[in-house]
Amino acid sequence: MNDETYMRQALDLAASAEGQTAPNPLVGAVVVKDGAVVGVGAHLAHGEAHAEVHALNMAGDKAAGATIYVTLEPCSHHGKTPPCADKVIEAGISRCVVAVQDPFSQVAGNGIQKLRDAGIEVTVGCLEGEARERNRAFFHYVRTGLPYITVKSAASLDGKTSTHTGESQWITSEAARTDGHRLRHTHQAIAAGIDTVIHDDPSLTTRLPAGGNSPIRVIVDTMLRTPLEAKMLHDDQAPVWIIAGPEAPQDKAASLQEAGARIFRLNESPASNLRKVMELLGEEKITSVLVEGGATLIGSFVTEQLVNEWVSYIAPMVIGGREATPQSKGKGMPALADVPAMEIQETTMLGPDVKITARKREE
Amino acid sequence: MNDETYMRQALDLAASAEGQTAPNPLVGAVVVKDGAVVGVGAHLAHGEAHAEVHALNMAGDKAAGATIYVTLEPCSHHGKTPPCADKVIEAGISRCVVAVQDPFSQVAGNGIQKLRDAGIEVTVGCLEGEARERNRAFFHYVRTGLPYITVKSAASLDGKTSTHTGESQWITSEAARTDGHRLRHTHQAIAAGIDTVIHDDPSLTTRLPAGGNSPIRVIVDTMLRTPLEAKMLHDDQAPVWIIAGPEAPQDKAASLQEAGARIFRLNESPASNLRKVMELLGEEKITSVLVEGGATLIGSFVTEQLVNEWVSYIAPMVIGGREATPQSKGKGMPALADVPAMEIQETTMLGPDVKITARKREE
Repeated sequence: MNDETYMRQALDLAASAEGQTAPNPLVGAVVVKDGAVVGVGAHLAHGEAHAEVHALNMAGDKAAGATIYVTLEPCSHHGKTPPCADKVIEAGISRCVVAVQDPFSQVAGNGIQKLRDAGIEVTVGCLEGEARERNRAFFHYVRTGLPYITVKSAASLDGKTSTHTGESQWITSEAARTDGHRLRHTHQAIAAGIDTVIHDDPSLTTRLPAGGNSPIRVIVDTMLRTPLEAKMLHDDQAPVWIIAGPEAPQDKAASLQEAGARIFRLNESPASNLRKVMELLGEEKITSVLVEGGATLIGSFVTEQLVNEWVSYIAPMVIGGREATPQSKGKGMPALADVPAMEIQETTMLGPDVKITARKREE
Repeated sequence: MNDETYMRQALDLAASAEGQTAPNPLVGAVVVKDGAVVGVGAHLAHGEAHAEVHALNMAGDKAAGATIYVTLEPCSHHGKTPPCADKVIEAGISRCVVAVQDPFSQVAGNGIQKLRDAGIEVTVGCLEGEARERNRAFFHYVRTGLPYITVKSAASLDGKTSTHTGESQWITSEAARTDGHRLRHTHQAIAAGIDTVIHDDPSLTTRLPAGGNSPIRVIVDTMLRTPLEAKMLHDDQAPVWIIAGPEAPQDKAASLQEAGARIFRLNESPASNLRKVMELLGEEKITSVLVEGGATLIGSFVTEQLVNEWVSYIAPMVIGGREATPQSKGKGMPALADVPAMEIQETTMLGPDVKITARKREE
């Protein structure tokens, strides 16, 4: 057993709460004394105890003289909970192994410093790459103030999401659709364009066999055309936020609010100023957004170079058709030289379909 | 060592001549005497000796009492060469293991019968699936009279083959492009639409580090708009066949013929009667066609349900754009229920790109 073994255990603990902690990061902790694990913990939900606290509580007296492995620097500030660094010191921990420094300005090395000042030996950088990757939405959000944006697309081999007659149901398999629901669970918000709402009346909720968190539904709806009878306004599954433009009728805003929606109004058309919309969501502490369509909204995210991650589910069929719906519309990038570089992270089979995950290289 | 071991060796020998034998199938043969390989052979080119002949020549006297492994039933008819079954009998072979019966009507079990009649023990069906798969173009062609059609597409994650400004060069990597040239080498013909010829003036030749066969260039050109100065008319790399409609001007046909092209004239528009075009190519003993575009031609192959295999090279970038070129246009399939079922055969990484190969299930 070495540091990496325990840190990997801590990373797995962190992952167990995927989709539950936003806007907080995923964090796991393991306390080891004389070669035995004496405490484990994970941060489970915003506002609840941090991973270190759970692990130290479990360890009890055995924490004295022990090593704690934490996937993110213990916090040094009073947030929703007291500083974890203080708790680590009080528990008598003698060594602390940290995967990565917390980028959050109120911590950003202060937690590590506090521990060192208290005489604790601190090692930073154990499995740092994996720890960053696991919390890539959180790191992106803290660095840019913008949510981490994942586009999900289900298409045929020739890039169609529906036939030219508009048929799109079940292009991909149940295995792919279930995986898509997992994406909803792990994102804090889900964005859709108003045409999708009008034509498909989707619920955009997470439907997994064992349940899951449904993301906040964010509708980009310049003129507030969302029908008052839209399913998502009546299912009580997750909040509905509607982003309107300056010209949207005031009375429709009032009736949508009455129906339970939260209305945000931009000074410009939100559909062509998605960065403004994302800034607004960032201010609302939304750290991750899943974009499921339609093609026009996806194309606008592409054109504004806001896409951090792209997930394609590709079904083994060809559909053809000049008028068949493509994966993206919008204005589009004019020059290949300006297209942001991405990297294929993974290709896997989901039943008969291929899933491709690609990510933008983070600066 | 067992039958499958030697048959796999014979299949590998067959594969060594990929792209060289059309319209003939790929065939390999191995002669084994007392546990030792005493002869190997492959069919290398149309009109040249069959695999069994090479292998038996190498074995010489050792063929007497030996076992021969052949990936396709030995022929029983006088074609460009004398019947292989006779040669096997004359060589004194005592056992023959055949992967799959020859579907060609002049053989179709007659070769096997001839061997059995001569007292040779014949086993049929060893690695039959792999043998069929390796010669899938040949089997498809013999069964339907139509060439086996592979569509090649190079696109972004969101299914664009160029930006809305028309920029398409180098979407995919050099590794993907080299693989694309291998596809050209292994197909007997390559089809392109007239718009592609006019806009891109492509050569459509095989350019591989160690050389390779360039496919016959087949241009679907209803009105014979192929420019007389088109590169492919002057490079002497492979024949150019142009498929015209009934209204195409006679004088242009004459001048294109003078420039070296072979002109075929259909009674209807070839662009919307690709099955007719493929029947014509079948009559010309073309067993496989690679379709590289443009999107309209690809879409028409899709709409006419002629696609046997689809190869996508997907680059890790998103381009967006309602006006960006999609992978397929044409009329397209109206109903998902009518879309032919395909299967993903393979996904691999080629440099930074993903290659997806899918095939239609053969009846």
